[in-house]
Amino acid sequence: MDEKYKKDSLEQKYNIIKDNRYIMEEVIVPISKVLNLPIDEVVEIFVRKCDSATLYELHAYAEQARMGCLGRKVDIDLGLCWLSDFFGLISRKDADLIRKKVVESHILHKKPYKEALEEGRKLILQLLKE
Amino acid sequence: MDEKYKKDSLEQKYNIIKDNRYIMEEVIVPISKVLNLPIDEVVEIFVRKCDSATLYELHAYAEQARMGCLGRKVDIDLGLCWLSDFFGLISRKDADLIRKKVVESHILHKKPYKEALEEGRKLILQLLKE
Repeated sequence: MDEKYKKDSLEQKYNIIKDNRYIMEEVIVPISKVLNLPIDEVVEIFVRKCDSATLYELHAYAEQARMGCLGRKVDIDLGLCWLSDFFGLISRKDADLIRKKVVESHILHKKPYKEALEEGRKLILQLLKE
Repeated sequence: MDEKYKKDSLEQKYNIIKDNRYIMEEVIVPISKVLNLPIDEVVEIFVRKCDSATLYELHAYAEQARMGCLGRKVDIDLGLCWLSDFFGLISRKDADLIRKKVVESHILHKKPYKEALEEGRKLILQLLKE
């Protein structure tokens, strides 16, 4: 009986992930890519490490993560990490605004990442050439 | 007289940067690449925005920045941002250790970035499969 319960619960957890296209596309696939790990193994990791409640909330976490982690990528891709945090050529406030603008352009307004980045780059150049 | 002083000072500032190969290679060139801006214009920005004392210290800042900003790149490239900060599948302490190991492998032990990253990836997989 316990074994059956455990199996059902595992199956339920698999289904929570596999039935949610957003989780699959925005969480499982990207993690599978960076870790160079088959998609099924990534799903298994989440199933083993998270309880059902957490898996149900994965969608919300994923949206936060997408915004937050993209912000860090923008920092790297635009050199904001160097220009603002270490050399102080751009104020932290301006860096925050530029990062936010690029992230929103891409995620909320669906601009291709390269175009969104280009907008940010122009804002940086304006500030640096002031 | 004032004009001459200003010109000498500017020239001195240009020289501080241009005579320092480390600054050129580790600061000016990378920023020139991310901003898609000619090298001379990047030098000019630093000359205009920084005083001589800051330029003399650029070397030290640059080393800190290289370590710090590479850490953020590792976060992105290994998905640590997702796995640790947002999904909690890897503890913050473990994520810090893995990030540090990759950064040190590449910067201190001169391993190619891809190899250093691969070491980090293996550590992550070990933790996730525990």
